[in-house]
Amino acid sequence: MAEDPITAFPPQLSLDVPELTAVLDGRHAEIRTAVRTLLPSYASLLDDAERMSRGEYRERVLEVVQEMAGSGATGMGFPPEHGGGGDIGASVAAFSTLAYGDLSVLVKTGVQFGLFGGAILQLGTERHHGAYLADIVSGRLLGCFAMTETGHGSNVQALGTRATYDAETREFVIDTPTVDAGKDYIGNAAAHGRVAVVFAQLEVAGEGHGVHAFVVPLRAEDGTVLPGVRIEDDGPKMGLNGVDNGRIWFDGVRVPREALLNRFADVTEDGTYVSEIESQGRRFFTMLGTLVQGRVSVASAGVSAAKVALTIAIHYALRRRQFETGNGEDGEEQLLLDYGLHQRRLFPRLARTYALHFASEVLTEDLHDVFSGIRTDEESRRLLESRAAGTKALATWLATDVIQECREACGGAGYLSANRFAALKADTDIFTTFEGDNHVLLQLVGKSLLTDYASEFSDLDQLGMVRFVAGLAVETVLERTSVHKLLEQIRDVLPGGGSDEWHTDSGLLDPDYHLAMYRFREEHLIGGAARRLKRGVDSGANAGEVFSEVQEHLIRAARAHVERIVLEAFVGVVEKLPDGDNKFALNLMCDLHALSGIEADAAWFMEHGRLTTQRSKAITKEIGELCRRVRPIAGDLVDAFAVPTEMLRASALLGERTA
Amino acid sequence: MAEDPITAFPPQLSLDVPELTAVLDGRHAEIRTAVRTLLPSYASLLDDAERMSRGEYRERVLEVVQEMAGSGATGMGFPPEHGGGGDIGASVAAFSTLAYGDLSVLVKTGVQFGLFGGAILQLGTERHHGAYLADIVSGRLLGCFAMTETGHGSNVQALGTRATYDAETREFVIDTPTVDAGKDYIGNAAAHGRVAVVFAQLEVAGEGHGVHAFVVPLRAEDGTVLPGVRIEDDGPKMGLNGVDNGRIWFDGVRVPREALLNRFADVTEDGTYVSEIESQGRRFFTMLGTLVQGRVSVASAGVSAAKVALTIAIHYALRRRQFETGNGEDGEEQLLLDYGLHQRRLFPRLARTYALHFASEVLTEDLHDVFSGIRTDEESRRLLESRAAGTKALATWLATDVIQECREACGGAGYLSANRFAALKADTDIFTTFEGDNHVLLQLVGKSLLTDYASEFSDLDQLGMVRFVAGLAVETVLERTSVHKLLEQIRDVLPGGGSDEWHTDSGLLDPDYHLAMYRFREEHLIGGAARRLKRGVDSGANAGEVFSEVQEHLIRAARAHVERIVLEAFVGVVEKLPDGDNKFALNLMCDLHALSGIEADAAWFMEHGRLTTQRSKAITKEIGELCRRVRPIAGDLVDAFAVPTEMLRASALLGERTA
Repeated sequence: MAEDPITAFPPQLSLDVPELTAVLDGRHAEIRTAVRTLLPSYASLLDDAERMSRGEYRERVLEVVQEMAGSGATGMGFPPEHGGGGDIGASVAAFSTLAYGDLSVLVKTGVQFGLFGGAILQLGTERHHGAYLADIVSGRLLGCFAMTETGHGSNVQALGTRATYDAETREFVIDTPTVDAGKDYIGNAAAHGRVAVVFAQLEVAGEGHGVHAFVVPLRAEDGTVLPGVRIEDDGPKMGLNGVDNGRIWFDGVRVPREALLNRFADVTEDGTYVSEIESQGRRFFTMLGTLVQGRVSVASAGVSAAKVALTIAIHYALRRRQFETGNGEDGEEQLLLDYGLHQRRLFPRLARTYALHFASEVLTEDLHDVFSGIRTDEESRRLLESRAAGTKALATWLATDVIQECREACGGAGYLSANRFAALKADTDIFTTFEGDNHVLLQLVGKSLLTDYASEFSDLDQLGMVRFVAGLAVETVLERTSVHKLLEQIRDVLPGGGSDEWHTDSGLLDPDYHLAMYRFREEHLIGGAARRLKRGVDSGANAGEVFSEVQEHLIRAARAHVERIVLEAFVGVVEKLPDGDNKFALNLMCDLHALSGIEADAAWFMEHGRLTTQRSKAITKEIGELCRRVRPIAGDLVDAFAVPTEMLRASALLGERTA
Repeated sequence: MAEDPITAFPPQLSLDVPELTAVLDGRHAEIRTAVRTLLPSYASLLDDAERMSRGEYRERVLEVVQEMAGSGATGMGFPPEHGGGGDIGASVAAFSTLAYGDLSVLVKTGVQFGLFGGAILQLGTERHHGAYLADIVSGRLLGCFAMTETGHGSNVQALGTRATYDAETREFVIDTPTVDAGKDYIGNAAAHGRVAVVFAQLEVAGEGHGVHAFVVPLRAEDGTVLPGVRIEDDGPKMGLNGVDNGRIWFDGVRVPREALLNRFADVTEDGTYVSEIESQGRRFFTMLGTLVQGRVSVASAGVSAAKVALTIAIHYALRRRQFETGNGEDGEEQLLLDYGLHQRRLFPRLARTYALHFASEVLTEDLHDVFSGIRTDEESRRLLESRAAGTKALATWLATDVIQECREACGGAGYLSANRFAALKADTDIFTTFEGDNHVLLQLVGKSLLTDYASEFSDLDQLGMVRFVAGLAVETVLERTSVHKLLEQIRDVLPGGGSDEWHTDSGLLDPDYHLAMYRFREEHLIGGAARRLKRGVDSGANAGEVFSEVQEHLIRAARAHVERIVLEAFVGVVEKLPDGDNKFALNLMCDLHALSGIEADAAWFMEHGRLTTQRSKAITKEIGELCRRVRPIAGDLVDAFAVPTEMLRASALLGERTA
C-alpha cells in the first residue's frame, strides 16, 4: 500500500516551477521551448484577428503557417529526406504547443501538414512522396484533405463521391453524383488549396471496391479553379475564421492512374484491382488507422486550450477581489480564489487538465512507437487507435467545459474579445466534432473493447459487432479485456482482496484504491453492455434496435475505459518522480482528479455496491480539503504550463502580468 | 395519489400543436403573437450581422429597436400616460418572444426600456417621469444604466463613483476617483446613449449615504460627448456586437439637485438628506429590488434561446441519417433521433426547457402582481426577488447547456454561421453573468432562505447573515422555511407517511413522489447549511472563513430550492390541463424533467437515505423508457414553441423547412 499522503504532507509546499514545466514537457522539451519562442512573433494576430476582414485574416494566417513551416516546427513528423524532422512524437509536441497561440494558425497547420501531408505520406507511396512531400513540408504547396461530405461525416464508408477507372485512358474519373455528396467543411478549399486528397468510392470495371484516396488538382498556380471542379466558400463560422473552409464538387475530373494513393491497394494499367487486404471494410479501416495522428494532435491541442483558459482564470482570481469577508485587512475585499466555491469550480478542472496532459503524452509516445516502427505488432496499433479516439473525446470535452467555466469565473471581463475567451471558446468549439464526433469515437472505443481489439473484427460495423458479441459468452468477452486481468491483480494487492469489501479499508488518497474503483467500473460496464447486447439478440430483436438501446451503456463503458487509462497515465508519472514538493503537488492533483471522478459517478458506484454512503460523503469532504491545499500553489501549477505571457492576451484581466 | 400514467398512457399520442402553443403562451398569447409577427421583418439582420462591420451592425440594431418601439411591443411595461402599455406581465412576454430573434436587438431593448427606462420609472418620481418617459418609450431618447464598474460588478454596494452635494449651487458633482471606478460594460454608452442613470456613492455635507442613482447627461443632441465625461468603447465582444457597450468616467460633472432619482431618498435644497428607510443597506436593496424585472426578463430570454436551439437540433435529427442499422429499408441509414443516445442527449433538455418555461411564467405573474399593486405585502416582494434571482440562474445555465449540446448534436453543420448556433452561443454566453452572476444570485437565494425572507434582515451582508444564522437554533431556521411546512403536508399524503420509508412505495411517475424528493432535498440542505454555519461560528472561526467553507453547501441549498419551485410550477400547470393527449405529453415532459433531476443528484439522495440503489437504477431505466415515448412527439413538442421559421436560419440543417 502506498504511504498515506495526508500524514506525509508538508505544511507549506514550495514548488520548483521550471522543474515542473520540465516534467510536463517530458521528452520533447526542446521542440516545445522552440515553439514557445516562436509564438510571440505572431502574437499581434490575436488582436488583429477581430479587426481584419475574413479575407485578410485568412491571408495573414497563411503567412504565419508558411513562416512556421520555414522554422521547421510544422514538419517534424515528415522523413528527413523530404525536409522533415523525422520525429513523430516531437511533431505532436510542437502542435500542442502551437495551440497556445492563434487557433486558426493551429488548425490550418493541422490541415496542411497533418491531414493533407499525412495522407500523402501514409496512404501514398514513393512516387507521391517524391512528387509532393518537399513542397508540402515547406508550405509551398497547399492542399486539402477532402473526406467529409455534406451527407456523410461520421459514416465515411458511405461517401458518395465516385472514382471510376477508365482503362482506355488509364485515368480515374472523379464525380460528385449528388449535391449532398459534395465535400464539405474542407480546410484550404475555399482559397489556398492547389490539390486535394479526395476520398471516393473506387469502381473498376463495374465493380466497387470501397473508399480510396486520390490526389486531385483543384487550382492552377495562379489560383484559378480548374475545369470540372466547383468550389464554394463555407462562409463565416462560429470560430476559426482564419481557415478557408469550403465545399468541392467534381464533374468528370480526370486524373492519371498514378493519382491513386496506392499504399494499400492499386489498379493495374489494364484495370485489375489489387490489394493485400482482402476485406473492403478492413482495408478502409487500415487506411483510416494510418491517419490516427490527427486525433492525437487534436487531443493535445484541446488540453493546451484548457491550460490557457486556466492560466487566465486562476491569475484573475488571484488578483480580483469582491466582497468584504472580514478575512483580510479592514475594508479589504476577499480574493476570488479564497472563496471555497471558486476553488471547487477551478481546481478539479485544473487537476483533470493535468491528468489529460499526461494521458495525451502517453498517447503521443504510443503514436511515436507505432509509427516509428518501434512497436510493430497489430495489437499495439489497435490499442493506439482506441486510445487516440477516447483521449481525443475526453480532451476536447475538457476544453469546452474548462473554457466555459473559466469564462464565467472571469465575469463580464471574460466576455470582452480583448481577453482570450471569446476566441478560445469559438475556435475550440468544433474540436468535439472534427477528427471524429466524440460520441462516435467513444462508440469505436466501445466496439474495440467488446471485440478485444482483434484485428479480424476491425471491419465489423455496428451490426456486425452486435452479432459478434451476441455469439460469445459474456465471460469470454470479459476475460479477454485487459482491465479484467488488471482487476485480478489489484484484488490481491488491496486489503480484503478477493472479497466484496476490498474498497472499504483503503485510504481515500491511496492511488491503488482509485485505480481499483476505475477498473471495477470499466469491467462492470463492459460486462453489462455485452450482456445486454446478447440478451437483446437472443430475445429476437433486430441488431439495429438492440444497438440503439444499448448504445448509451456501451458509450458509458467506453468512457469508463478511457477514464481508467487517463488515471493510469497520471499515476504512472507521479510514481516515477523523485521525492520533493513537486511530487507532492502532482500527487495532490492526481488525488483530486481521481476523487473528483469518483464523486462525479458516485451514484453508479453506490448502485453497484462499491461505495458506501458514508464513504461517498467522505470523498466530497476530502475534495474540499484537497482544494484548500491546492490554493497556495494554484498560481505555480498554472505557471508550470508555461503559456507565453503574450499569448494570454488578457491585459484587462491580469493587469501587470501582461505586456 | 395521482393516477398511474403508465397504465393510462395511450399507445400513440396525437398532439394539438396550436393548442399546446396556447398553453405555453398562457395569458399573454396576444402580445406573443404580435411579436412573432414582427420578428420576420428584421430576419435579414441574422444574415447581415456577420457581413456588417461592428459600426454598421450597431446602427442597424438601433433602427430595429426604434421600429420595435414604434410598434408598442417594447413599451408594454410603462404607464399608459407616458405612451406605455401598462401591462408588466405582457412586457416580459414580449421580451421573451423577441428573444427568438437577433439577440443584440433583444439586449439593446433590455438596456433601453428595461434597465434605463426601468430605473427612471422605478427610482424616479413624477418630475423624472414627465421629463423622460415618453421619449424613452418612443425610442427617441437613448440612455444607459451605469451601475457596474470595472472594479465592482457583484458587490455593487462598494461602487467607487461619487456624487457629492454642493449646497451652494444646489448641484451634485459626479466623479470617478480611480480608473477601476469607471463604469464598464455599459450598453448604449459607446455610441447611442444621450443620458445615463449613474449609480454613485452619495455624500452630503461630508457624510456618506450609500449608493444612489442620478440622471447624468452624456452627449449633446449631435452626439458630442459632454465636457467632464470620458467614454471608451469596450471593443469587440464574444457576442452581442450590435450593442454598443462602453466605459464611462466622470470628472467633476455637475447635475442639478433634481437629477437625483428620489423615490426612496432625497436631498433638500439646503443639503439635508432625507429618507423613509433608515438603514443604508436596506435602502440600497429596496432600490435594487425595484429593478427585479431585468432578471425576470433575462430568465425568460434564456428559455427562449434554448427553445430555438432545440427546435433546430430536433428537426435536424428528424432529417439527418447516419449509419445503416438494419431498422429501415435496405441500405437506408438511421435517423439520428432514433438513436437511444441522441434521445438521451436532447429529450431531458427539452423537458427541462418546458419546466423552466412554466417556472418563468409563474415568475412573470408574480412580477406582474407585485408591480401592478395586486400583491402589496412585503413578503410577496421578497419571494419575488428570490425567485427571480434563482430562476434567472437556472434558466441562463440551461441556455448555455442546451445550446452547446444542440450544436454538438448538429455536428459540423452546427458550426457554420449560416445556421444559428454561432450567434446563439456567443450572444447568450453573458446571460449567466449579467443581471447578476449566477453564483452570486444563488448566494442571495441562500441568504433569503436562511433568513426566511424577513425584511428586517434584507440588508445583511454575508457576514451579517452568518452571524444572524449562527444566533438561531437550527430548528428555528428550518421551521421558518416554507418547504418545511410543505414537507409536513406531503408526509401525510404519501404512503408510509411520517416514516423514513415514505418514498419506497410510491410510483416512479407520481408527481407527489417527485415533489417529496425535491422538498426533502431542499429542507435537508438548508438545515445542513444552517448547522454548519452555526458550528463554524461556535468553534471560534471568523465569519468570513465560515462563509467560504459553507458557501458551496449554501449554494447547493439554494439550487435545490429553485429546482423545487420550478418543478412545482410545472406540476401546477399540468394538473390544471383538461384531459387529452396534450396533457399526456406535458405529463411526460414533467415526469422526464423530475426524474432527470433526481437522477442527476442520485448520489446525494442515496447518501441521505432517500433512494435505494435499486430504485436509483429503476429511475435511470425509466428515463430511457420516457425518452422512447417522447420520440414520436418530439417534433410537435418543439413546434409548439412556435419559433418563426425565418428565425431558425438553418437552411443547411433543416432543408425545406426554411425559406
